[in-house]
Amino acid sequence: MNNPVPARLAALRAAMQQHGVAAVLVPSADPHLSEYLPGHWQAREWLSGFTGSSGTLVVTREHAGLWTDSRYFAQAEQQLAGSGITLMKLRVPHAAEHLEWLQQHVHENEVLAAAGDSVALTTQRQIERRLAEAGASLRTDLDLPSAIWPDRPALPRAPVVEHDLSYASIPRADKLGRLRSAMRKLGATHHLISSLDDIAWLTNLRGSDVECNPVFLAHLLMQPGGRVTLFVNRAKLSDSLVAALAADGIGIADYAAITSALGELGTPDNLLLDSSRVVSSISAAIAPTVTRIEAANPSTAFKAVKSPAELEHIRDVMRRDGAALVRGFRRLEQRLAAGMAVTELDVDTLLHEERSAQPGWVGESFATIAGYQANGALPHYRATPESHSTLQAEGLLLIDSGGQYLGGTTDITRVLALGETTAEQRRDATLVLKGMIALSRARFPKGASGPQLDALARAPLWACGMDYGHGTGHGVGYFLNVHEGPQSIRPPVTGGALVALEPGMISSIEPGLYKPGRHGIRHENLAVVVEADRTEFGEFNAFETLTLCPFDRRAIEPSMLNPEERAWLDDYHAGVRAALSPLLDGADLEWLNRHCAPL
Amino acid sequence: MNNPVPARLAALRAAMQQHGVAAVLVPSADPHLSEYLPGHWQAREWLSGFTGSSGTLVVTREHAGLWTDSRYFAQAEQQLAGSGITLMKLRVPHAAEHLEWLQQHVHENEVLAAAGDSVALTTQRQIERRLAEAGASLRTDLDLPSAIWPDRPALPRAPVVEHDLSYASIPRADKLGRLRSAMRKLGATHHLISSLDDIAWLTNLRGSDVECNPVFLAHLLMQPGGRVTLFVNRAKLSDSLVAALAADGIGIADYAAITSALGELGTPDNLLLDSSRVVSSISAAIAPTVTRIEAANPSTAFKAVKSPAELEHIRDVMRRDGAALVRGFRRLEQRLAAGMAVTELDVDTLLHEERSAQPGWVGESFATIAGYQANGALPHYRATPESHSTLQAEGLLLIDSGGQYLGGTTDITRVLALGETTAEQRRDATLVLKGMIALSRARFPKGASGPQLDALARAPLWACGMDYGHGTGHGVGYFLNVHEGPQSIRPPVTGGALVALEPGMISSIEPGLYKPGRHGIRHENLAVVVEADRTEFGEFNAFETLTLCPFDRRAIEPSMLNPEERAWLDDYHAGVRAALSPLLDGADLEWLNRHCAPL
Repeated sequence: MNNPVPARLAALRAAMQQHGVAAVLVPSADPHLSEYLPGHWQAREWLSGFTGSSGTLVVTREHAGLWTDSRYFAQAEQQLAGSGITLMKLRVPHAAEHLEWLQQHVHENEVLAAAGDSVALTTQRQIERRLAEAGASLRTDLDLPSAIWPDRPALPRAPVVEHDLSYASIPRADKLGRLRSAMRKLGATHHLISSLDDIAWLTNLRGSDVECNPVFLAHLLMQPGGRVTLFVNRAKLSDSLVAALAADGIGIADYAAITSALGELGTPDNLLLDSSRVVSSISAAIAPTVTRIEAANPSTAFKAVKSPAELEHIRDVMRRDGAALVRGFRRLEQRLAAGMAVTELDVDTLLHEERSAQPGWVGESFATIAGYQANGALPHYRATPESHSTLQAEGLLLIDSGGQYLGGTTDITRVLALGETTAEQRRDATLVLKGMIALSRARFPKGASGPQLDALARAPLWACGMDYGHGTGHGVGYFLNVHEGPQSIRPPVTGGALVALEPGMISSIEPGLYKPGRHGIRHENLAVVVEADRTEFGEFNAFETLTLCPFDRRAIEPSMLNPEERAWLDDYHAGVRAALSPLLDGADLEWLNRHCAPL
Repeated sequence: MNNPVPARLAALRAAMQQHGVAAVLVPSADPHLSEYLPGHWQAREWLSGFTGSSGTLVVTREHAGLWTDSRYFAQAEQQLAGSGITLMKLRVPHAAEHLEWLQQHVHENEVLAAAGDSVALTTQRQIERRLAEAGASLRTDLDLPSAIWPDRPALPRAPVVEHDLSYASIPRADKLGRLRSAMRKLGATHHLISSLDDIAWLTNLRGSDVECNPVFLAHLLMQPGGRVTLFVNRAKLSDSLVAALAADGIGIADYAAITSALGELGTPDNLLLDSSRVVSSISAAIAPTVTRIEAANPSTAFKAVKSPAELEHIRDVMRRDGAALVRGFRRLEQRLAAGMAVTELDVDTLLHEERSAQPGWVGESFATIAGYQANGALPHYRATPESHSTLQAEGLLLIDSGGQYLGGTTDITRVLALGETTAEQRRDATLVLKGMIALSRARFPKGASGPQLDALARAPLWACGMDYGHGTGHGVGYFLNVHEGPQSIRPPVTGGALVALEPGMISSIEPGLYKPGRHGIRHENLAVVVEADRTEFGEFNAFETLTLCPFDRRAIEPSMLNPEERAWLDDYHAGVRAALSPLLDGADLEWLNRHCAPL
């Protein structure tokens, strides 16, 4: 098959020439600044051939470069080969290092074009500042990649449904009321929300416009007098749902009508918006006489803290998810033991079969990563029908998977030993486990942030001259996006904001270790922040692990664990056994008991 | 004795009334933004009666508040009693929380006054931004505290001397040449330096204008054509030193002439200055046609990384300082054992006697803190002739002390058990030791900053619901200020800059624990960052401990240490014993051997 990328780049460069544009920036973004994009906005993937979730393409007359982070270096190297695009390795994940490059390579009076519906307002300002220093300028009204994209996918049209109150736990009227209080404190009469998970959480609605993320394309405008307008394709909603929303003061307008609605505002309207969650083209539609109040969406902080009722559902989901994994892992081992050919793709199928049989299951929360041996060293590896490994009865299989349930979202990584493992593999897996245990056991003062704690998970690896290039933990939505903010556990960065880990917040804890060409390790649990202690030194919080699934002891070197670490692991396994036993029987129960026995 | 503070505040308020000023800000600062100030600029202490090194006084018509951090809460509470000044407890050490307060309490059209020679340019801008939001303004040309200060101390006149090249190790001409290279890269033709330690390091000169800090009052201006002007009281320099400086291109001008020199610059001069290290009144003197280049002083980064020759001197100094401490601690114990009355003040005297007998000794690097039992819980306690404790043969004595030597600066804290200790005391001291060991043993990737590592020292305390309110480590000068930047080990803060810990940088490692009314613990060593490892994951650094003095095992609970921690401590003590044995004999050597035996 011919690589189609060079022809696409040539078409783009012809369009650039025609419009007098010196450079085009193609971010991985949509008008909602989602992490995972509908095909309609995957111009970066279409233009570059690189399928990773995170990457930025810059094309000039002579150069084409794709910036991505270390998770994707190996994958990008492979996918960009022969494309004419250079892999630009980010030194700091998610940093805007391409802007430094642009500042040096775009010259006086030249124009950089970027589609206004794929650039956050903050990013636009950042680019403009950089370009101004070089005497160059930005145009956001020129979407050249779309103009040359003949088979661009249409907008998704999946139905929007009610997230039943028995699961959602807080009526949308209450959530909207709380948001109105926050708006009042900020002096806002109006509030624009473009972030899809905020909208889904606020309205207790769910959709499936974005793969694995139960959200739907919409904007939401909070207005005075208790009015709310949801800008969404009306055809996605049933009449009864529209009526139910109307009863809560939520009216419907067309998805595209958000710009005209914003244009109709004016003095004395005070519009609250988060400039990092609203794109340039939407912001440009706001009437110039509106007073803007720029602050984080209050709903983002609200939804990050799970309610006691939500946590009860999540604990129940964790039991069902854990039981499904035990059944899947046991069947996988059984097939291997029976000498059947099993591939990485079969792992996905097995887990899908088991999870989908669980009550309340809706779908995967992200594409399963099943990476055998060297493939496990690609942190975001995805086996495809064209390219995947067949498992052997030896070595390590990394499985990172998750489910969307009406009662919560799961995300778990385990490393299975399929037979003989090397001493290096066991040592590596145990070092990563030590990091996971250190953070899982940690207590920390109220107000402490993820970046303050990140090193606790890395120190055991650092001690051996090892590290991993991704964050240690991300927030997780409630039957929503598997990655959500505002909190995260990652190394601090200069100038960065620190968000306290508050009781009720859920985070993944997922240190890893990747040895290209050999094997990859990642252990991942979800944990909720809980109040732990109140002493003369103040209040202290801790993590309570939510995920319920044994670690494969065949990949653990017990002699490397100190007594506290062994105790943590034995306690964890005893808890898993107690929680999952009632849901399993026969060979599955036997497998559970064997894997949950004390070390 | 009557508290003189109320009368001074009344005089200040009368002056405020007269000048139409609504509020006065009195920071702890001088025109060089030094941490420790000559008496001439200790207006905050004179006005408030609070003697702590860090604090900000704000006086309005109705209110007077002093902001300081948790190190000083107990001391400030005591010293402010009856003064009419309210202690305002900082939630975050060194944060400008008084500015939030001012923004709320200074009203439209009102004026805040702050002496321009005690406010950094960055601070001035920060204040002006805050006040502008309240419609108020700042005057920096009105120094009201000085105007009502009848017995204000004169400027110090201590001599300036050469730091002999055999110690300074790099000729000043080389240092100036390196600085010129950095200036060229930044496009600067001129460079203003007001920070005293930068000037002392650059010129290989030392003074004693500031207690315990071997610096001298000066500004320095780098000019084109290899010219340098040192603005300093000429009477402080010998003729031969002036001649030696002239030979290296350094001319002398009067200390006060810096403002006229800056006024004489103009187009096309490009002046490099660090707006956080230059005060408002000096900045105001710069001719308006000068192009300013604002960046950190390159010399600050240069001097933070110690040369191999400096490190050799420092290792030698550590041996002599350690031997002096062993002799002092043994004599202290002997006196107590003999039933003699020994006070906290005597500790200072004993250590002074032993240190001052060492070759190359110059003076103390800061005022000794000897805090017995509850006094140890005041992190910056200082015993005075009026108020101090007499030691008993029980409990804990915290001793934080340091020396200035021609070959380096020391800073060490040890906790001595003077007899019986409680289980709580031993547990607390061991927990702090665990934190110190965790950080001292840590390896970390090249580029890691202090804030990234800070939690490693706190985690053992956090696990027990404890913490300490100060940073974990500060840089240390080379026969210079005992506190220096740019690196530090402290919790990350939102928006803060992160400085990598580079090989050659020295940091203290000093976790602590303070139980008001009971006891205080702090263990402090100095350590140098060294290259540790180069692996497929990159380069890793580590700390090499420099300080040589045993920890008092009578305050340690061995059962709380894991095998790695015990091994670290035993190794450390074996190293101390090997290094100090040649310098000790008789009872001192016997004491050393006893304290350095394996646990």
